[in-house]
Amino acid sequence: MEFEVKFLPEGKKISVQDSSTVLTAALKADVDLVALCGGRGTCGKCLVEVVKGSTPPPTEQEVRKIGRERIAKGIRLACQLKVLDHLIINVPDKSRIGRQKLVIMGVEPTAKVSPNIKKLYFEINPPSLEDPRGDDVRINEVLSHLGMSNFSLDYTIIKEMPKILRESGWKVTFTIINNREIINIQPGDKTKDCYGVAVDIGTTKLAVFIVDLISGKILFADGIMNPQIKYGEDVISRIQYASQSEENLKELQRSIIAGINELIERGLMETDVRREDLYEVVVVGNTAMHHLFLGLNVKWLGLAPYSPVIGMSYNIKAKELGININPSGNVYTLPNIAGFVGADAIADVLASRIHEKEKITLLMDVGTNTEVILGNKRGLWCCSTASGPAFEGAHVRYGMRAASGAIEKVKIREDFEVEYITINDEKPRGICGSGIIDAIAEMLRTGIIDTSGRIILKNHRRVREGGFGKEFILVFKEETATGEEDIVITQEDIREIQKAKAAIYAGYMTLMKKGGLKKEEISEIIIAGAFGSYIDPLSAKIIGIIPDLPTSRISFLGNTAGSGARLCLKSIDYRKEAEEIVKKMKYVELAVERIFEEEYINAMFMPNSRLEDFPEVMSIIKSPINVRRYVKR
Amino acid sequence: MEFEVKFLPEGKKISVQDSSTVLTAALKADVDLVALCGGRGTCGKCLVEVVKGSTPPPTEQEVRKIGRERIAKGIRLACQLKVLDHLIINVPDKSRIGRQKLVIMGVEPTAKVSPNIKKLYFEINPPSLEDPRGDDVRINEVLSHLGMSNFSLDYTIIKEMPKILRESGWKVTFTIINNREIINIQPGDKTKDCYGVAVDIGTTKLAVFIVDLISGKILFADGIMNPQIKYGEDVISRIQYASQSEENLKELQRSIIAGINELIERGLMETDVRREDLYEVVVVGNTAMHHLFLGLNVKWLGLAPYSPVIGMSYNIKAKELGININPSGNVYTLPNIAGFVGADAIADVLASRIHEKEKITLLMDVGTNTEVILGNKRGLWCCSTASGPAFEGAHVRYGMRAASGAIEKVKIREDFEVEYITINDEKPRGICGSGIIDAIAEMLRTGIIDTSGRIILKNHRRVREGGFGKEFILVFKEETATGEEDIVITQEDIREIQKAKAAIYAGYMTLMKKGGLKKEEISEIIIAGAFGSYIDPLSAKIIGIIPDLPTSRISFLGNTAGSGARLCLKSIDYRKEAEEIVKKMKYVELAVERIFEEEYINAMFMPNSRLEDFPEVMSIIKSPINVRRYVKR
Repeated sequence: MEFEVKFLPEGKKISVQDSSTVLTAALKADVDLVALCGGRGTCGKCLVEVVKGSTPPPTEQEVRKIGRERIAKGIRLACQLKVLDHLIINVPDKSRIGRQKLVIMGVEPTAKVSPNIKKLYFEINPPSLEDPRGDDVRINEVLSHLGMSNFSLDYTIIKEMPKILRESGWKVTFTIINNREIINIQPGDKTKDCYGVAVDIGTTKLAVFIVDLISGKILFADGIMNPQIKYGEDVISRIQYASQSEENLKELQRSIIAGINELIERGLMETDVRREDLYEVVVVGNTAMHHLFLGLNVKWLGLAPYSPVIGMSYNIKAKELGININPSGNVYTLPNIAGFVGADAIADVLASRIHEKEKITLLMDVGTNTEVILGNKRGLWCCSTASGPAFEGAHVRYGMRAASGAIEKVKIREDFEVEYITINDEKPRGICGSGIIDAIAEMLRTGIIDTSGRIILKNHRRVREGGFGKEFILVFKEETATGEEDIVITQEDIREIQKAKAAIYAGYMTLMKKGGLKKEEISEIIIAGAFGSYIDPLSAKIIGIIPDLPTSRISFLGNTAGSGARLCLKSIDYRKEAEEIVKKMKYVELAVERIFEEEYINAMFMPNSRLEDFPEVMSIIKSPINVRRYVKR
Repeated sequence: MEFEVKFLPEGKKISVQDSSTVLTAALKADVDLVALCGGRGTCGKCLVEVVKGSTPPPTEQEVRKIGRERIAKGIRLACQLKVLDHLIINVPDKSRIGRQKLVIMGVEPTAKVSPNIKKLYFEINPPSLEDPRGDDVRINEVLSHLGMSNFSLDYTIIKEMPKILRESGWKVTFTIINNREIINIQPGDKTKDCYGVAVDIGTTKLAVFIVDLISGKILFADGIMNPQIKYGEDVISRIQYASQSEENLKELQRSIIAGINELIERGLMETDVRREDLYEVVVVGNTAMHHLFLGLNVKWLGLAPYSPVIGMSYNIKAKELGININPSGNVYTLPNIAGFVGADAIADVLASRIHEKEKITLLMDVGTNTEVILGNKRGLWCCSTASGPAFEGAHVRYGMRAASGAIEKVKIREDFEVEYITINDEKPRGICGSGIIDAIAEMLRTGIIDTSGRIILKNHRRVREGGFGKEFILVFKEETATGEEDIVITQEDIREIQKAKAAIYAGYMTLMKKGGLKKEEISEIIIAGAFGSYIDPLSAKIIGIIPDLPTSRISFLGNTAGSGARLCLKSIDYRKEAEEIVKKMKYVELAVERIFEEEYINAMFMPNSRLEDFPEVMSIIKSPINVRRYVKR
């Protein structure tokens, strides 16, 4: 006998013979799931969560590795769990191997599902000679009982309605948006088929989620690189490209919409959702991404006073934008605060709830552009800082994204020899963001570089003169995947990271000074964005990205912009909340702030030129004097 | 020196040398204006109304023909009035020669101009480093002072807005629709440029009016034959054609929209209105015309219970329908009451105000389909009856529309010789609607036909056997324009007219019986529709179209459907009133009414088989007995 296993959040489905394990099903369905021990139940890494379906009792290994308490909550080992029913299985991020996929998930608070889309089933009285009124008058009669007397009909629906009403025997399901407009009519009871799409347009990454608007569950989640990258890596270069001509602007809009459509297409393939039943898209992104998505002229974003064209939220028909959901469906865009703090920052706040907290929180959504938000329920300061794509592996000689063979952890011994871990334990191919931060922090700690970032170690087999200054050899070519080149950290790589981290540090320091706050008053530091998920907090502190505060105050929430988009999709309450958040947020334009310049220069040092602000770090790293002495030895 | 003379309602303009007469200007501008005496001031037919501009004192002839009182009101003789200033001249219908143009004007009550479209000029604070909020947030601030805090922006406008705001120095005119949506932004103060289009889609004729939404003036009025005629002459045949396939339906929709666009194009040529400043179109028509305009499936209009698909009013973007006004502009369609009583009947009521009157009014909007409305302010009965196109000259052997050479008046002497008048005094080419009614009424009066419509005159040079029964020769070929054929009234022509008039009579008699009303209770009979404008009320009474009531109770209001459309364009108050009228109107489906059948059979006689209901007519015509006796003589 065969059973179907569906894996969340991807929504991939597979039929397997009964008594197959969930791990086998996952492999067959090409679902990313860790299995270090090869399915013997000893590594305990293949943790999954049973969402639906009955399961056999746990094995001995499961009891040992998971404990009865968590098993009772549905946590099981995929390699031990036999399929004896149709199952829906959630695979948490920590049980995934590869991260070859872009990290797109983020923490999301539990939300009441109360979407902008309602589906209602009705049986309507057909017309008769005594009552020959129009179809819409009949519908109006039914809807006015529900307090929706002023509804409107999308023009497409007006044309389809009479046939559907008659062919269904006047038993139909209406899809109503904004409590006002009928955007779909379907024969019979289709009230359960109601889905939406959340879109997070990052400068570098594009993430799309398909959400069930009845249960609130994520049925599909996937990401690709933002297809606009070919027109410019960062926001400024894309603004420049788009400003050159109308055609360029259209090209950028077309390319992001094509990207979104591509992911929606994948979602429709991998789930049993029909396009007709995708009724709404909620889009977040920074202001430039938001504007390019809507095809708005971004020229003025790059010119003082850097104001956005559009600050408010909008509802636009999907067909007007060419988004391939139900053509009468709605595209909702969140508000923007300023030219460089956009809808994504509001989504970050929505997902992290920092606007509700009594204590001061510092949130950084680290990406090619890093949004920084500081404050509490009484008000939030915000700014945006151009940190560049170095943390995502770009502008770094051997940088790469977090895929198989990327060095993700680095340890340097006292004799300057290097230990490292790669993703999937493959032979190293390059270094991803967390690896670069680790490597530079370790180089600083061990005195290979000084606080100015200069490589000062001499006379060691791992240090050499490269074409553009000194280089530190992380992996000799013999050990690499290709065997052709050494993997090195160059002096220029270090400068790139310094610039990136200085921008972020100077950003939040400016906000702190604007708000009259001291470092110690920050109760929580939230790192949002894909970047944060795998970095070592201590390494981040050592090089001075994060303030020198107890590691316990740091949390990593993942892609909160995406989470915020999903919240707004699941419930209109969050859209109203978004409007309130906009009013609470005080934007600081860093381009005109003296403090920013000062702090930027201070932060070009590692951890900082003001060493007194980094007591914990200073106790860990060799002091600059020591370093110098050591080198002279 | 040259002055410009503009002629209303066409909106044609011409520059003439000073001291030219207005008649000269009219001839030069190809404006239709009667001048029987050749401009000597003796016939007094070229009456015009001076709308704007200063004029010289009246001539002696003017004082004699018009009188000082009317001169003081701006009435002048075009042939006497010299152009000494820029002038705007209105040419009333009665001063027009040809009627080659379709009759499209109708009576229109004075209306407060309070359109759905508002234009507002604003000077907006530009963004600054201290206040970098979005353009829309600034606009919102300005509009919320006016109580419009929840405005929305058309997507097209969102894209154009930033450029226009900046290029105009933040001085712009907004066009706002429904008090809610911004549909245009223009640099500078453009508040005076605000226009709309009223459209009356008749089964046979299509009329388009361009109206200044500030002054309420008609700037352009023109009509063409409904281009759908090639797919079927009457409503039923068009319903059949459209029901055959999706493509047929689209074809019918495309053809009417092309017709409307053609007339709009003419209007833009003949006035100095720009397309961008045409912001709204109000459309009326019977239910089938309404549905075909919107591309709605009309199949069910032709099947019991003959209910419309759409009964309510709608606002649809012009770009969605392909109407060539401002693409973000609005198309408003009035409500429909039943499958065969549509938006045009509501427009008739709006224009004639019968829903406000204490006394009972009978309104007939005579066309290929004739809408009949009966009642007063307490309620209105309505029905629709398929009178066919005979009154418009179709289905009549020598029928033609009211153009040059059409016989429009007929007198038959006791010796059965015929006197007639043609349009433009040209040699006769055929007979138009009013001519046919005159001819048949005269044939009845003089006993050429009996009350059953049979040609009973024998042994007279004007009566002969034709291919399909007897014929009465109205004009011998020698007198005709072509000189080739006699113009005759055939037995079949008489049958066509009998069927048409019987349908109308049976329609209002059914309503009267439904409403428990007697003929004498009708205080006013309103004939609407182009047809009515030129018919002789007595002839209409003789053949039994109109009830046998004093002629003083009859009024002809012309194309009131078009007037109602213009009212709804000029003021949203009339749209609300239209909704109220719908509630007042009780539809009667004639197809299931026994009374209708009975009355139809009675009305196949002329004036009717119930002669006692037509005492005045009976005193005029030779009694059937007399007729028969006369024939035998």
